Amino acid sequence: MSGEFSTIDAFRKALSAAPGTDQTAVSAAAERNEQLTKPQGALGRLEDLAIWYCGWRGDARAKVSAPQVIVFAGNHGVTARGVSAFPAEVTVQMVANFQHGGAAVNQLARAVGATLDVHALSLDAPTVDFTVAPAMDETAFLDAVNIGWAAVNPEADLLVVGEMGIGNTTSAAALAHALFGGEASDWTGRGTGVDDAGLTLKTKVVAEGVALHGGVTGLEALRCLGGRELAAMAGAVARARALRIPVIMDGFICTAALACLDDEQPGALDHVVSGHVSAEGAHGRLLQRLGKVPMLDMGMRLGEGSGGTLAISILKAALECHSGMATFAEAGVSEE
Amino acid sequence: MSGEFSTIDAFRKALSAAPGTDQTAVSAAAERNEQLTKPQGALGRLEDLAIWYCGWRGDARAKVSAPQVIVFAGNHGVTARGVSAFPAEVTVQMVANFQHGGAAVNQLARAVGATLDVHALSLDAPTVDFTVAPAMDETAFLDAVNIGWAAVNPEADLLVVGEMGIGNTTSAAALAHALFGGEASDWTGRGTGVDDAGLTLKTKVVAEGVALHGGVTGLEALRCLGGRELAAMAGAVARARALRIPVIMDGFICTAALACLDDEQPGALDHVVSGHVSAEGAHGRLLQRLGKVPMLDMGMRLGEGSGGTLAISILKAALECHSGMATFAEAGVSEE
Repeated sequence: MSGEFSTIDAFRKALSAAPGTDQTAVSAAAERNEQLTKPQGALGRLEDLAIWYCGWRGDARAKVSAPQVIVFAGNHGVTARGVSAFPAEVTVQMVANFQHGGAAVNQLARAVGATLDVHALSLDAPTVDFTVAPAMDETAFLDAVNIGWAAVNPEADLLVVGEMGIGNTTSAAALAHALFGGEASDWTGRGTGVDDAGLTLKTKVVAEGVALHGGVTGLEALRCLGGRELAAMAGAVARARALRIPVIMDGFICTAALACLDDEQPGALDHVVSGHVSAEGAHGRLLQRLGKVPMLDMGMRLGEGSGGTLAISILKAALECHSGMATFAEAGVSEE
Repeated sequence: MSGEFSTIDAFRKALSAAPGTDQTAVSAAAERNEQLTKPQGALGRLEDLAIWYCGWRGDARAKVSAPQVIVFAGNHGVTARGVSAFPAEVTVQMVANFQHGGAAVNQLARAVGATLDVHALSLDAPTVDFTVAPAMDETAFLDAVNIGWAAVNPEADLLVVGEMGIGNTTSAAALAHALFGGEASDWTGRGTGVDDAGLTLKTKVVAEGVALHGGVTGLEALRCLGGRELAAMAGAVARARALRIPVIMDGFICTAALACLDDEQPGALDHVVSGHVSAEGAHGRLLQRLGKVPMLDMGMRLGEGSGGTLAISILKAALECHSGMATFAEAGVSEE
């Protein structure tokens, strides 16, 4: 075992030792916000986002200048159950598409000036079908977490993690069902586009998986019902926290993976905002459970970090306003 | 009278002679969209926006490369009634702030690579208090329309119009009330932040204005209840239509001004999308009446084109995806 963590407990310990926001920077940013040439609160949520970001960066006048997008790809044994509208070989084909710059996330990352890194995780070794046994043993799980952890550029000042993995909405639905209860049907959707019969089958598979691993929580849920790319996203977001790099979450699969961090260690997602709510119906419910309000609602359901990457432009703009605007005193503008 | 239009009827004629979208480009863009490496519809509203934009540009693979933001500023006689939380001299102070690069819209325009033009419209000659007489005579109205018309850069490929004008939410509320009926209180909000007593007074002023000019519609409503900056926005958006430059609307005041174009000539806003819904409660209702779905909902209520300019990044990203992504055939990715 190489990499940051050789046991799951060591990863747990890192989560519990994670730093918080810088309250001094939060206060100074809030004070600056009140002096800017606009009616109080007139930039709405942009103001909250800017102050939140400044706190995590420890800088009352921060800007976003080095965003990093990382896409992790993995294959899922549960696809043997016929839960996806696309064949599993699409995962490796789409990785090549990312590498050649042809996917949506390539265009979106370029548009916001973000670097894009792609990590294909043992695509020739799918996880175990989670209706039969845990998706990953401890070694496979830690390998993925460690790859995610190491993938974060310490010089980045914003992180988006995304995924590609045929079958992974099934995994995400099983995680949400395991963590938040209810019925399997509450959390299972059409993913990339299964038909009615496909949805019925997928819901049954989700229920079977959660029944088999009954009672799993936190990281153990992620190991038993997740996938390599989900574990890697969790590893990357934990590393971002250690580095005080704010994170924009992507869609349903990303949120389900990160919910395991929050379940393991409440507050583990304080440095994370939701970039968008996807068209996958369960995503909105999942965000509500996590207390996250999405920045965008564009009916997207693509994954690969696309929604989170699109939202970078909004967060960047919030910081441009916060850190670039004149104050009432500087501009000689009368206050209310 | 210099400028494009020397009579209001000439402006009406231009509205009725405006070009439509290019259906060939719409069809070709829709066909391309189906071939891109993503599940059908997975980019949600980004796909619709891209196809819409391609139609107006007459190019099935268009990109946004030269967006223009124009802010028009005007002063309002109705401020004599005490309807704003800020003194009227703030309009001229904010124009200086725009010119020196210190306002929110300066940061937002720079962030999306847009040019920003500012036109101060006779700030030393406020419009007439519309509770006493029409806000503008025909000459004043046409001057403003002509300035807006001439302000559009024919080389731009996207337009956002915004405004600055202490008192102009009162004008916008009166326009919405005149065009769409209901009660004055349905359309009157706190603007930059009036208190309860201020809101009561403002509602009364709106009702008085609409009662005085009872039954006005379309451009006549804009002349009687609008303001110079509102008329200029209408002129600019009409010019954009003639040039087939798509437009992103800003908030409540912008939408109220443009609603007069739609009221005068149904379909006059087919080349216009809504950039955001503002925190001013009546804005959402106004957008519904116009059948426009906002791209963003960030609780903003600043005006000056800020919400529309922020939304440029979303539209740009939609076109980057549409025109930059690989097709299934190009990338060798299996289809469903």
